[in-house]
Amino acid sequence: MTAKEQNKSIDTRYDFTHAPERRGSASVKWDVGEGELPMWIADMDFATAPEIIKQMRHKLDLGAFGYEEPGEAYFNAVADWYDNEHHARPETDWMLFATGVVPAISSIVRRVGHVGDNVLVTAPVYNIFYNSIENNGRHVLSSDLVYHDGAYDLDFDDLEAKLAEPLTTLMVFCNPHNPTGKVWTREELERVAQLCAKHHVVMLSDEIHGDLVLSGPDYTPAFSLSPEARSQVISLVSPSKTFNVAALHAATAIIPDSSLRAQVNRGLNSDEVAEPNLLALDGTIAAYAQGREWVAALRRQLRANRDHARAFIGTRIEGLRVVESAATYLMWIDASGVISEAPGKPGVESGYNPGSDALAATIREQTGLILSSGSIYRGNGSDFLRLNFACPPDMLDDGLERLERGVRSFKQTQ
Amino acid sequence: MTAKEQNKSIDTRYDFTHAPERRGSASVKWDVGEGELPMWIADMDFATAPEIIKQMRHKLDLGAFGYEEPGEAYFNAVADWYDNEHHARPETDWMLFATGVVPAISSIVRRVGHVGDNVLVTAPVYNIFYNSIENNGRHVLSSDLVYHDGAYDLDFDDLEAKLAEPLTTLMVFCNPHNPTGKVWTREELERVAQLCAKHHVVMLSDEIHGDLVLSGPDYTPAFSLSPEARSQVISLVSPSKTFNVAALHAATAIIPDSSLRAQVNRGLNSDEVAEPNLLALDGTIAAYAQGREWVAALRRQLRANRDHARAFIGTRIEGLRVVESAATYLMWIDASGVISEAPGKPGVESGYNPGSDALAATIREQTGLILSSGSIYRGNGSDFLRLNFACPPDMLDDGLERLERGVRSFKQTQ
Ligand SMILES: Cc1ncc(COP(=O)(O)O)c(C=O)c1O
Ligand SMILES: Cc1ncc(COP(=O)(O)O)c(C=O)c1O
Repeated sequence: MTAKEQNKSIDTRYDFTHAPERRGSASVKWDVGEGELPMWIADMDFATAPEIIKQMRHKLDLGAFGYEEPGEAYFNAVADWYDNEHHARPETDWMLFATGVVPAISSIVRRVGHVGDNVLVTAPVYNIFYNSIENNGRHVLSSDLVYHDGAYDLDFDDLEAKLAEPLTTLMVFCNPHNPTGKVWTREELERVAQLCAKHHVVMLSDEIHGDLVLSGPDYTPAFSLSPEARSQVISLVSPSKTFNVAALHAATAIIPDSSLRAQVNRGLNSDEVAEPNLLALDGTIAAYAQGREWVAALRRQLRANRDHARAFIGTRIEGLRVVESAATYLMWIDASGVISEAPGKPGVESGYNPGSDALAATIREQTGLILSSGSIYRGNGSDFLRLNFACPPDMLDDGLERLERGVRSFKQTQ
Repeated sequence: MTAKEQNKSIDTRYDFTHAPERRGSASVKWDVGEGELPMWIADMDFATAPEIIKQMRHKLDLGAFGYEEPGEAYFNAVADWYDNEHHARPETDWMLFATGVVPAISSIVRRVGHVGDNVLVTAPVYNIFYNSIENNGRHVLSSDLVYHDGAYDLDFDDLEAKLAEPLTTLMVFCNPHNPTGKVWTREELERVAQLCAKHHVVMLSDEIHGDLVLSGPDYTPAFSLSPEARSQVISLVSPSKTFNVAALHAATAIIPDSSLRAQVNRGLNSDEVAEPNLLALDGTIAAYAQGREWVAALRRQLRANRDHARAFIGTRIEGLRVVESAATYLMWIDASGVISEAPGKPGVESGYNPGSDALAATIREQTGLILSSGSIYRGNGSDFLRLNFACPPDMLDDGLERLERGVRSFKQTQ
């Protein structure tokens, strides 16, 4: 059964079968060669919710687009969304607007702690965290996730030891976790936050994928932890992944502690990432106030796509193993079975382990399929590939077939 | 004759007679009390060009709003605009996208020179320059403009002495100049740039008001100076003031020197102000490619408004003197004739010179008219008020009558 046949059961009020044509536009994702198929960057090949576009059009009718500032309508929409979707209501006065999650992370890295400090992450993790940390003169310290039986876990002893290092002042935690798709339990999150509090480390919880839990229990917003655990916690949320509106440039920092919030507020403002563009407020309000059904339908589509891709890879592509995941539209694929056949894998004799970079390069060269090479996420990432399955079923089938061919080519050239 | 009657002669293809209703919206300008009239912030009470709105709508049709990057279509539109409007064509590879002029200024302040350095300005000048400089740990050094006979001039000897100070590494120049409305001659600009080059000071030329020269010779883009003068020059341009699209969040840095450009590029990127939102590219392209007639009509309207306001103030409000200005929709009003009557003006006995703050506060209290107090621009600004006259003629008449009443009240309470 192809993804397309499997798709028949999906809710049809919204269209997840056509990708907007973005070749030749300013899209980063679609800036590719003829015949290439991009399945790397976290940008979906679906149009966003029609409710959002309608509200944006309405905003354009106003005509005058001077300076704006977020008000109660915006902050209430955020609070309502977390209340309705995640059963945790943040106070509106905990919130600060930011032009994106990464702009907020970079700004917070600059404001919390000092040049030369350590920022703790759990590798493999979203590669841009490394840019935000290193571009601002801090050191990356990783408590690598432990990988066993196709799943990832935190190593709490290691984590605590690294939080206890005197120069560790900030932790950037991915909740849910990109690229592994892991949803942390409330207990795990509470424990991480408690350890951060104990060692006076600010905990930044990047929750951009929080609305895209596809199976199992929902994710836990860090602002909803116990008062003592959340005393030094910053949740960063945004409609950008959920609604495919990365270029909306809208995110919200939710910070229960007023002193920490005041620091972050100064940082966002002097870094010039605190002001909304002309669609940011209306677009976010529409998403949060009117987008629930669309997101529910999206999740059904993503679940179908994920299950289909998993089954395809499991049955058709020997040497690849899909990591079990509960969230995000990103599939984390263990390719060690393929890569380990490559010459020089132990990396000792040749001095260079081609790993996932070579595999991803061969797949692109031979089939045009563009995946993320896992090495950029560090940790044990160089045995992995990351595939974005948020696209129409036809396109997914095309991608999976290219993947099969690409892996076959790679094996043959070894 | 009221402004409205005078208005009859204006081109009627575009509507400059109705202000979009922004009370109760997220607008910073219109976040005012009932009956108040804001004429301070640089945001016009006109709808932007219909050509821009049309193109924005077209972009919304696309539906998917993932990450974008500016390409040749964007950079060519910028080059064409400067070629057509200002007869100076910048190379497209001199250009970098930024999310705004102020974000770019702050980022450049951080990248050029070091904490503790001096940044030279010419006060009175756009107040936000001070924030960008001081929030980033630099010192403001001003070569104050010389005021005589109702006009401002540079003091080149003083300017050179301050550029020659070892810790002066950057100059932020306002070209044309806000708040005075002065358009520098090519000779003056060349001389400033030559002095900067001689003393190894980077010259940042903020040209956001460059399209709004209302009378006399056009402004000179700094990138069009002689090759030796422009070797350390950065021009910052944007459609935001010209087309009333501050919340479009789009600006362009034009930097002929490739090393300086590489530095600024790194800064904009690590400061997260280098990526366009979903309307920034299309909005700018539409403005620059299709906006010429609208801007020509706008300038006619602004000229009529300016002349009307000047005449009104000249004949009806004793003690105010309008500074002759050639550019911007901001009127710089010398109120020393009113303020000097205020007790404590010499500021010696009371230790506090109420100056323009007290005058602006009285006008707001008594009439609801909100002007900028000149003190925020520093230099000799505390004798001045700044009035934004970019609004429909009716509204301008309302503002001018309030100003007359407010000044009268102020005189009476002294
Ligand atoms: C974990 C994570 N954080 C942040 C981002 C990007 O955030 P933004 O586009 O709001 O800067 C991504 C995008 O893939 C992500 O995966
Ligand atoms: C001289 C000057 N520069 C910059 C700005 C603001 O630029 P932006 O909104 O692009 O940050 C203004 C707004 O009034 C201005 O007058």
